[in-house]
Amino acid sequence: MKLSARNMLPGKVVAVTKGSTTAHVKVELASGLTIMSAITNEAVDDLALKVGDTVSAVIKSSDVMIGK
Amino acid sequence: MKLSARNMLPGKVVAVTKGSTTAHVKVELASGLTIMSAITNEAVDDLALKVGDTVSAVIKSSDVMIGK
Amino acid sequence: MKLSARNMLPGKVVAVTKGSTTAHVKVELASGLTIMSAITNEAVDDLALKVGDTVSAVIKSSDVMIGK
Amino acid sequence: MKLSARNMLPGKVVAVTKGSTTAHVKVELASGLTIMSAITNEAVDDLALKVGDTVSAVIKSSDVMIGK
Amino acid sequence: MKLSARNMLPGKVVAVTKGSTTAHVKVELASGLTIMSAITNEAVDDLALKVGDTVSAVIKSSDVMIGK
Amino acid sequence: MKLSARNMLPGKVVAVTKGSTTAHVKVELASGLTIMSAITNEAVDDLALKVGDTVSAVIKSSDVMIGK
Repeated sequence: MKLSARNMLPGKVVAVTKGSTTAHVKVELASGLTIMSAITNEAVDDLALKVGDTVSAVIKSSDVMIGK
Repeated sequence: MKLSARNMLPGKVVAVTKGSTTAHVKVELASGLTIMSAITNEAVDDLALKVGDTVSAVIKSSDVMIGK
Repeated sequence: MKLSARNMLPGKVVAVTKGSTTAHVKVELASGLTIMSAITNEAVDDLALKVGDTVSAVIKSSDVMIGK
Repeated sequence: MKLSARNMLPGKVVAVTKGSTTAHVKVELASGLTIMSAITNEAVDDLALKVGDTVSAVIKSSDVMIGK
Repeated sequence: MKLSARNMLPGKVVAVTKGSTTAHVKVELASGLTIMSAITNEAVDDLALKVGDTVSAVIKSSDVMIGK
Repeated sequence: MKLSARNMLPGKVVAVTKGSTTAHVKVELASGLTIMSAITNEAVDDLALKVGDTVSAVIKSSDVMIGK
C-alpha cells in the first residue's frame, strides 16, 4: 500500500516504552538523529515492535512545522 | 522559547512552493533525506523562508506514525 | 508495510479536486458514507489517484474525536 | 453547533478503555467497520461515554490519509 | 452534540480568506487575541462563515503544544 | 527560534497532571479562559513545567476547527 503521507524516514527502533494506553517509540534515523513517536500500545503489539527493528517514521506534511 | 514538541530535525530549505493559501516547503536533513512541510503562506512570509535557509523541521511525537 | 495508524477504512474514490497545493479526495466507504481527505497535490499524482480507485482512508486514533 | 470538520461517521460505542490520562474508544460504524479513537479520560467522563452509546466519529479532512 | 475536543474558545470572526481549496479564518477571542484556523472552503460555505459571526475555535488537547 | 505555527496564546500554567506516558497541562489564558494541552511526560520534564509558569499555548492553524 502506498500512502499519501509525504514523509517516510527510514531508521531503527532504539527504545519502546509502553504506558497504560500510549507507547513512546524512539527511532534512530540514518543520520544518527533520533525521532520520537507516540502511538497506541495496540499498534506496538500489532506491529510486534521491538528494539533493532528496521522501520519508517511516517509523517504527513501538514504535521511538519518549520522553525527558523 | 523551548517547545514541548519532541522532534526538531535540523536541515536546509531546498524548495518553497506557495499555493493560494498553503505553501509546501522541502527541507534537506543532515542525512540527505528530504522532508516536506505544508504551512500557511503567512508563515512563509513571517519567517522570510527562502532556499538555503538553515531551519528545523518541528514535529510532535503524536504526529509521527511507525511503518514496519 | 504495516502502519501504526489504527484506522483503515476501505472504499472507492468518488471525487478528486485539486487546488493550487492541496487536493480534496472524497471516498465512498462500504457503508455508503463518504469521507473527505485533504492531501497534497503531489500525493494525488504519486498515487495516481482517480475516480473509481479502490483505496483505504487511513486515520490515526488520536485524530478521531467523539461527538455525542 | 455545526463544526468545520468535514467527517462525521455515525456509530455505536463498543469499547471504552481508560489509561492513566488517555482513553481508547472503539466505535462500530453502520457498515460494521470499527474505528478507534484516542481521547482524554476527562472527555470520556464529560460525555459520560459508555458501551452502547450512539455517537459520531468526528475527523478533520486534513487528518485523513489515503492508502492505495 | 458535545465533542471530546477539550478546547472551545469563544470569539468573533474578523477575517475569512478563501484559497483554491483551503480557507484561512481569523477569530478574535474575548481577550482580544486572534487565533487563525485553516479549514476547507467547503466548511466555510457549509457554516456560511462571515465576518462578525460568533463562533468557537475548537482544538483537541493533543494539538496544543506548550512553549516556555 | 520563530515557528511556522500561527497561534501562540500567552498564559499561566494552572495544572500539570502526569499519566504513564502522556501529561495534561492546563493553561489559563489572559482572558481567564483555560486551554488544555496533552504532551509527553518527557516534554514536561524537559521544560521543567510547573504551576505558575508563564508559557505559550502553541497551535498550528490546521489544528484549529471552527464551530458555529
